[in-house]
Amino acid sequence: MAVIDFVAQFRAHVGGDAGQWVHWGATSQDIVDTALVLQLRDALAMIADRIDQVIGALAVLADAHRGTVMAARTRYQQALPTTFGLKCAGWLLPLVRCRKRLAELRPRLLVVQFGGAAGTLAALGDDGVTVMEGPAAELDLGCPPLPWHTQRDGIVELGSWLSLVTGSLGKLGQDAVLLAQTEVGEIDESAGGGRGGSSTMPQKANPVTGEALVAAARLNATLLGGLHQAQIQEHERGGVGWQMEWATLPTMVVTAGAGLSKAAALLERLSVSASRMRDNLGAADGLILAEAATFALSVHMPRPDAQALVKCAARSVMGEGGHLVDALRARTSAAVDWQRLRDPASYLGSCDALIDRALAAAKPDPLAS
Amino acid sequence: MAVIDFVAQFRAHVGGDAGQWVHWGATSQDIVDTALVLQLRDALAMIADRIDQVIGALAVLADAHRGTVMAARTRYQQALPTTFGLKCAGWLLPLVRCRKRLAELRPRLLVVQFGGAAGTLAALGDDGVTVMEGPAAELDLGCPPLPWHTQRDGIVELGSWLSLVTGSLGKLGQDAVLLAQTEVGEIDESAGGGRGGSSTMPQKANPVTGEALVAAARLNATLLGGLHQAQIQEHERGGVGWQMEWATLPTMVVTAGAGLSKAAALLERLSVSASRMRDNLGAADGLILAEAATFALSVHMPRPDAQALVKCAARSVMGEGGHLVDALRARTSAAVDWQRLRDPASYLGSCDALIDRALAAAKPDPLAS
Amino acid sequence: MAVIDFVAQFRAHVGGDAGQWVHWGATSQDIVDTALVLQLRDALAMIADRIDQVIGALAVLADAHRGTVMAARTRYQQALPTTFGLKCAGWLLPLVRCRKRLAELRPRLLVVQFGGAAGTLAALGDDGVTVMEGPAAELDLGCPPLPWHTQRDGIVELGSWLSLVTGSLGKLGQDAVLLAQTEVGEIDESAGGGRGGSSTMPQKANPVTGEALVAAARLNATLLGGLHQAQIQEHERGGVGWQMEWATLPTMVVTAGAGLSKAAALLERLSVSASRMRDNLGAADGLILAEAATFALSVHMPRPDAQALVKCAARSVMGEGGHLVDALRARTSAAVDWQRLRDPASYLGSCDALIDRALAAAKPDPLAS
Amino acid sequence: MAVIDFVAQFRAHVGGDAGQWVHWGATSQDIVDTALVLQLRDALAMIADRIDQVIGALAVLADAHRGTVMAARTRYQQALPTTFGLKCAGWLLPLVRCRKRLAELRPRLLVVQFGGAAGTLAALGDDGVTVMEGPAAELDLGCPPLPWHTQRDGIVELGSWLSLVTGSLGKLGQDAVLLAQTEVGEIDESAGGGRGGSSTMPQKANPVTGEALVAAARLNATLLGGLHQAQIQEHERGGVGWQMEWATLPTMVVTAGAGLSKAAALLERLSVSASRMRDNLGAADGLILAEAATFALSVHMPRPDAQALVKCAARSVMGEGGHLVDALRARTSAAVDWQRLRDPASYLGSCDALIDRALAAAKPDPLAS
Repeated sequence: MAVIDFVAQFRAHVGGDAGQWVHWGATSQDIVDTALVLQLRDALAMIADRIDQVIGALAVLADAHRGTVMAARTRYQQALPTTFGLKCAGWLLPLVRCRKRLAELRPRLLVVQFGGAAGTLAALGDDGVTVMEGPAAELDLGCPPLPWHTQRDGIVELGSWLSLVTGSLGKLGQDAVLLAQTEVGEIDESAGGGRGGSSTMPQKANPVTGEALVAAARLNATLLGGLHQAQIQEHERGGVGWQMEWATLPTMVVTAGAGLSKAAALLERLSVSASRMRDNLGAADGLILAEAATFALSVHMPRPDAQALVKCAARSVMGEGGHLVDALRARTSAAVDWQRLRDPASYLGSCDALIDRALAAAKPDPLAS
Repeated sequence: MAVIDFVAQFRAHVGGDAGQWVHWGATSQDIVDTALVLQLRDALAMIADRIDQVIGALAVLADAHRGTVMAARTRYQQALPTTFGLKCAGWLLPLVRCRKRLAELRPRLLVVQFGGAAGTLAALGDDGVTVMEGPAAELDLGCPPLPWHTQRDGIVELGSWLSLVTGSLGKLGQDAVLLAQTEVGEIDESAGGGRGGSSTMPQKANPVTGEALVAAARLNATLLGGLHQAQIQEHERGGVGWQMEWATLPTMVVTAGAGLSKAAALLERLSVSASRMRDNLGAADGLILAEAATFALSVHMPRPDAQALVKCAARSVMGEGGHLVDALRARTSAAVDWQRLRDPASYLGSCDALIDRALAAAKPDPLAS
Repeated sequence: MAVIDFVAQFRAHVGGDAGQWVHWGATSQDIVDTALVLQLRDALAMIADRIDQVIGALAVLADAHRGTVMAARTRYQQALPTTFGLKCAGWLLPLVRCRKRLAELRPRLLVVQFGGAAGTLAALGDDGVTVMEGPAAELDLGCPPLPWHTQRDGIVELGSWLSLVTGSLGKLGQDAVLLAQTEVGEIDESAGGGRGGSSTMPQKANPVTGEALVAAARLNATLLGGLHQAQIQEHERGGVGWQMEWATLPTMVVTAGAGLSKAAALLERLSVSASRMRDNLGAADGLILAEAATFALSVHMPRPDAQALVKCAARSVMGEGGHLVDALRARTSAAVDWQRLRDPASYLGSCDALIDRALAAAKPDPLAS
Repeated sequence: MAVIDFVAQFRAHVGGDAGQWVHWGATSQDIVDTALVLQLRDALAMIADRIDQVIGALAVLADAHRGTVMAARTRYQQALPTTFGLKCAGWLLPLVRCRKRLAELRPRLLVVQFGGAAGTLAALGDDGVTVMEGPAAELDLGCPPLPWHTQRDGIVELGSWLSLVTGSLGKLGQDAVLLAQTEVGEIDESAGGGRGGSSTMPQKANPVTGEALVAAARLNATLLGGLHQAQIQEHERGGVGWQMEWATLPTMVVTAGAGLSKAAALLERLSVSASRMRDNLGAADGLILAEAATFALSVHMPRPDAQALVKCAARSVMGEGGHLVDALRARTSAAVDWQRLRDPASYLGSCDALIDRALAAAKPDPLAS
């Protein structure tokens, strides 16, 4: 392995009597694992910055689109009105929680590995722990209770976190892709940057970044399964688990880092069509107001009656066309504020208050850094 | 779904005018998710107790076996002497860290879900957030910034944690299985409880619990990959992701809980053969002392010379038999304390100090509960 | 294990001198594995029938909808015209290939397991192989070259096949879900069967079966990873791998069987809206004809010029509205058959011929049964 | 994408009027997928050769070690005698079956992809299928019923096969690692090639190749889960699934190819210690003969009595030492051929006949190529 050659060259470089003390009591894995931790510390600093960047971009969008009314969709069907601002707030919070989780796992992960050939610090007599504290302090890493060469829960925990980050972005990406469909057209990630690459189909605006975020999430979820398998190491060192880490973790780190960059770029150039959102809301002939109508009518009649009335009116609209509010007015003399009911923006519930809560949670946590 | 029927019955039970306010503004998923959280709270209390139990058992073993010298094995090969106490300390620490992680994730997970049909609390006008605080307080759950019906990072984080727990036990189980092999025979999990179930092979002591722990770890690692895929929910509710949770999370919880019970039982009835451990150490004709010899000789000669000498002596032993110490004495006049070198127990480095560190870390954290 | 008790009872039932010959030379796993194979044979017969049923339903739809023009969509964007018939033909062929694969794997899977405690048929002296042929013939199973108790490739191959089946259905389900979106509305799986279960949102037609097919595919893909891990069995029997099979394979079989039933039901009650398909095609203001226009113009001018012209016209339509054909006519005097170009049905290429090829491939293969 | 630039350069290279016909009616994915198939054809030829090589090496070992008696181990415990030849035969057969599977899947996989932008061959009028037959013939690939750009079952099936190959090798690797343990020492993969790389522990013979085979199996099993997820493509092309293929399939191909090379190398330099195998058999004081004794005694007494007698004798040996045969002789006057019973080689059942069956199955199948 590379460490053996490195040690030989380093020892020659040091030379003389001192040279023989190079690598005294350490094993190759001590060097590789500690180097990995140092690399991860740098990578996590970059990733944390990018998370902050995406959080910042989403916070701006959430605030700016408080009044951008659109259809909430459950199980691929228009359900109720919501706002694009609340949607952004929804994308935001898992990343806020991931920021907190990162602060929690860092002290477990960023520790030196130093145990010698079998984790006993055998070659250092009684001085093992004291010697271990040296590189820890030198490298500004924590000093773990025990060498962790075969107890890889810190590494595996990091993998889980990386997949949680890409999963959060994957949900954002999936939504972005669905909103960019030709028939929906509520957002466009390609605005300003050319519309896809098809020479014969210039009308297309391929949601390439949204798809990349979903693929990143699915890839990391896949690799995470393998990384967790790698926790089962044999005795005081197992070659299988270690190789499984090499084959999964680096890709997971890169995928998370790249995913965050892509998400930031997507949000920066995102074109949001408030008019298309409003048109789509109306496209269903007021049917999306069915729940609003039910609750509005429930003030004037027992709720089961209100539900039955709305169901009847909705069926009429689905069968013969027209607008739900008109179909209701023709069926009841209840003193409902029909004008207000007709406006989806009047049935947004706590959208605004929820956005405020999300923005408050998104503020940097002074304890988390 | 069950919730619809439940609500209908509950409404009828309440009756009268009050009945129509039952489930007002809530959606089925609000009930199911909040119920899930309540179930998880109970399950996690049980799991936490079992973790403490396993930690306790391992701490006792780590302390009791400080002096039980055995072979450390790297890549399935005897490497250096270690102690069974240190091995137990190694199994112990990931669980200690998992206890800490549980304390950290609990406030993220144990929150009420209440958002109505699309997460806007639409039917509650301006009172949505205030109403949400009601069941949270009533149920002693946290009140999240936003409904989390499509932001499942809390659930997925729990899955990762469960797999981290079973992975930690899987490493213990794998070691136990390997140590119980006929040719190793250093531990026996079946002592006192009958030796396996074979009627024609009474000599067998199948390590059924150790194998079960490995299987639990591999199963949860597998299911975790699917649970992370489930984070990609569409819009304001996706049926695919939710079904994927149902197909993975309950099994993961049960597997972790059962794994901990099995581990506790394994440790309780574990028979440790200190004599077999010592015999196995010697079985290699002192070859396991090669590193000890190298460092002992390095005091008297340059380290490369010491390494070459040990290599030469080891080859002789591997080819022609004999004991490494004798082969060395025949090759050098260095004033090594041969008697001390011959004793594996004199090359245990920091085993004891490391066990102390592990036991200190294992003490219950008053902040973690 | 259950086998031990079963053997004891069966032996008592047989009684007398003959009783002692019961289970002579067999081991529990022989019984369990052979029983598994018998169960799988029955399950596969059911699954094969259901595959034929789905193939049949898709063949009918493919033929019936040769003329149902709709938008082909690449990367979630309308691309070119196609037909719903070709879409059904696409869903059809993987199942046809799965039928063939099943015929190929059956002789490898449907074999007796009989090896005794370690796969040597030790207790049967020289008669082992002859005795093995007995139950094979009796049960109408193949007689494998060797006992396969630790060589599980036949089982794992079956798991791969099951996931290939559910994956094929998952693609169908994903398409069905996307086509059923409120804004697309080209198919409706809920027609005739009530529209979802929401009491307050009667307008919704939740694509519950489509989602279930996607979930089935993702679940089996997840479990398959674990089943392949189980192929690594230790020595002449490993408990871990065997337990991993138990935790994955039964669910995979049930999921495939249920998925096929659901797919058959989905196709049976599927409502296809040819008018909505045609409307959606036109919704893009003729932009979906961009490629058709390019090739039509390429007859009259160099292809790069044609591409540039179409791109320019498409941009005009996207910016200022209008129809692509009009925008082109305003920009060229080429003698294109504009009337024909305006009709998406005139740019269907080989849709019909491809459907014929698919239907020919779907005919039952007399060699496959 | 690279295809766009390639087409532009190729078109310029062709030049003139002919240039505009370059790529006429094809889409980038047609080129990429067909190129993938050509690469896979080459890779599979190499992989098939290596499978033959490993099969050949195992056949030689199976035949050569018919008489090399060793312990069969179930659940990590010595169970019965077997031969190393039968063990090799066991490793052999899954690869023989994989060879057959490869022959079966090849015609499904090795087909041209040609469908144009949406799989309708739109730009080629009525000539689409005829044109598709051209490159198929030219490239000596099959011509599929339909373009398969979004029906990826052929690719996914290949992935399953690759993981089946590495899984078969992983079982071999796991066994090799276990047999090479210090305390077992029955095989040594490092003979002749230097013993591991540890400078301070020259006694170690790290089973690096065996571990690499297990890691290869676990990695491919992991990636396979992701590849099966990729089967769920949206509509007429989905970016997510395609990217998931890129992130998994190439590694799987390389891992399978490398695994086979490693396995061939392992088998070539494998040192088998028949004496250590025999010693380990005896190490258990004849306990491994318990089943043999039971059946030998069953000729002279009812089988339950024989079982009870052997159990009693075995307990005595486990508690107080001695050899099982002596303990039995002291407890019965039955006229058992004690001399014969004492020899593990007399209780090998059908080992030889089974090896013959495996070798017959391993002969090249003239129909399979």
